Amino acid sequence: MKFTLETTDQNSKARAGLIETDHGTIETPIFMPVGTAASVKAVHQHELKDDIKAQIILGNTYHLFLRPGLDILETAGGLHKFNNWKGPILTDSGGYQVYSLSQRRKINEEGVKFSSHIDGRKLFFTPENVMDTQRTIGADFIMAFDECTPYPCDYRYAKRSMHMTHRWLKRCCDRFDSTTPKYGYEQTLLPIVQGSTYKDLRKESAETIASFERPANAIGGLSVGEPAEEMYEMTNIVCEILPEDKPRYLMGVGTPANILENIALGIDMFDCVMPTRNARNGMLFTKNGIMNMRNEKWKNDHSALDEYGDSYVDHTYSKAYVRHLITSREILGSQIATLHNLAFYLWLVKEARKQIIAGTFADWKTDMVERVQRRL
Amino acid sequence: MKFTLETTDQNSKARAGLIETDHGTIETPIFMPVGTAASVKAVHQHELKDDIKAQIILGNTYHLFLRPGLDILETAGGLHKFNNWKGPILTDSGGYQVYSLSQRRKINEEGVKFSSHIDGRKLFFTPENVMDTQRTIGADFIMAFDECTPYPCDYRYAKRSMHMTHRWLKRCCDRFDSTTPKYGYEQTLLPIVQGSTYKDLRKESAETIASFERPANAIGGLSVGEPAEEMYEMTNIVCEILPEDKPRYLMGVGTPANILENIALGIDMFDCVMPTRNARNGMLFTKNGIMNMRNEKWKNDHSALDEYGDSYVDHTYSKAYVRHLITSREILGSQIATLHNLAFYLWLVKEARKQIIAGTFADWKTDMVERVQRRL
Ligand SMILES: [Zn+2]
Ligand SMILES: [Zn+2]
Repeated sequence: MKFTLETTDQNSKARAGLIETDHGTIETPIFMPVGTAASVKAVHQHELKDDIKAQIILGNTYHLFLRPGLDILETAGGLHKFNNWKGPILTDSGGYQVYSLSQRRKINEEGVKFSSHIDGRKLFFTPENVMDTQRTIGADFIMAFDECTPYPCDYRYAKRSMHMTHRWLKRCCDRFDSTTPKYGYEQTLLPIVQGSTYKDLRKESAETIASFERPANAIGGLSVGEPAEEMYEMTNIVCEILPEDKPRYLMGVGTPANILENIALGIDMFDCVMPTRNARNGMLFTKNGIMNMRNEKWKNDHSALDEYGDSYVDHTYSKAYVRHLITSREILGSQIATLHNLAFYLWLVKEARKQIIAGTFADWKTDMVERVQRRL
Repeated sequence: MKFTLETTDQNSKARAGLIETDHGTIETPIFMPVGTAASVKAVHQHELKDDIKAQIILGNTYHLFLRPGLDILETAGGLHKFNNWKGPILTDSGGYQVYSLSQRRKINEEGVKFSSHIDGRKLFFTPENVMDTQRTIGADFIMAFDECTPYPCDYRYAKRSMHMTHRWLKRCCDRFDSTTPKYGYEQTLLPIVQGSTYKDLRKESAETIASFERPANAIGGLSVGEPAEEMYEMTNIVCEILPEDKPRYLMGVGTPANILENIALGIDMFDCVMPTRNARNGMLFTKNGIMNMRNEKWKNDHSALDEYGDSYVDHTYSKAYVRHLITSREILGSQIATLHNLAFYLWLVKEARKQIIAGTFADWKTDMVERVQRRL
């Protein structure tokens, strides 16, 4: 992987860059659609590429480990061959899902014991086997195995957990560095800053993570329920410490406003289930605010879904039609809404990039943050 | 509407023809994908046109009447404007759904009283208001309001019901002929032959229906559980009577083999939920037989979904990937399987048409009927 920092904004800490991988180049800042179980829900792979203009997608190690399972992914020749997405892929470490989805999880220094939410099968994730798992999945970007603390989180618990995440990182690096890619292309390990919402912990964690000198770094444990201002404060502290010449990935963030504010603080990569999950519930994000397609007001509105939208669905289908599909639970409603939301998220980061390069980011961001939070 | 009979097969009663409508020309024999509630489930309208090569789709009056409702469809300017499908549309009369879905239905000479399966609201369908409803939906082809008898059906009930369907047809025609299209394009009413599985009733009904001298005719009340041989016997009797120079539509049929056998008996138009509904359950129809994608045998089969398939999904995705999506209940699984099945059904009728024109239909049909029923 090669990162080129192209432009740094004069009026904020926003950056425009390029990440080169063996599966193609990513223009940053970038948003990564979440493809949980080898599929971005309700979206064809060619739609991701051609209509949404996704440059990298995410896969969830926990889900992929359970279904289809490592044997099938390995026989396929890795996830890219399995789902026919030809661009870069990042996999999370599975930690977040282990904490949120699995039953009877038990965490100790060695790793996490838990039961599958699908069949109750007992499993054990360790820093070492999670590296092996992601090697086998064949992700271009592999996340370190961490503990993602909840919000709010007791200071002592957050501190202890952070130190364990750091010790686990050492084990992740050792395993990663002593193994090789399985499918002939490069894989890059990203360590994760933790520390809950405590400034001193975030600072300590960022320094520790930076000291590992990996080619890219991530920030975890945010967007877990804390107020946005606390999130921005933590991002700011961490970005001050993480090296400038390496990509910074803020995990699980967020709303369009969250993304813009964090770009302004120096974040380069984002992922979030919000555009896809909320789409299926009828919530559409647009340049001018949020539309709840379940609202009665769209019932007889036969105008274009989003007059200012950049996706073909915005001009092919009407508000009344999409409202009908969503309220009737028609699959096509999920397809249209997901395509719209992801195309909007990708437009948002692409436009942010343009504004950064043009030197107009700060003003544009202030205006957009206000707009995208309106209720239509 | 204008029907041109192009070719009649020398070795069977199969025909190739053209149906010209104000929304475009349909090459027969044709299969019509079912778009229940203004959407062919899991399929974009541009996919219907470009990938599936659908020439006409079906809408269900019962479902459209309940959701989105006639006021919204009328404000939109009809169903074509509402869902942005620009080709011809046929709507059923709602009768079939009233019998199968609604609660507490009560049928008498005047019409059918029933409660909506969605909100329990009490409704009343009559031959007259069903004509008005389909005028408002804006279908190119409008079905007469009939009673579709179940299988098996008592002879006396079948006979009484058939006579009522004939009296209702008179009322349908009177209403249809005394009203005009709402959106500037022509609408065509199709009467429906009933008579259950009784030869004398089918003969009487076909003669009565033919005597109405409408531009196209339909056969209902088949594919409701009777053995295939009985269905073919009825189709055969009816096709002998219905005029040669008008399209014949066999409602709700069927499997690929059913379609081929009925083409051989002189049917021009088909519709069925099987390719779409079964797709969502993982059943794929192919030129070489049926694949159940839930089967363990596809688990590690990374070859193309359908090597001999004509749709891009057949060559973009693997059997193992589609099996994973279907067993994991991923929406993309429904999308891929539906697109495959509909593309196959449209290929099947297009190929039948080619073979009819080439004079090779009968032999080809015998071979295909055997092939499509295999289990892969
Ligand atoms: Zn996290
Ligand atoms: Zn019927």
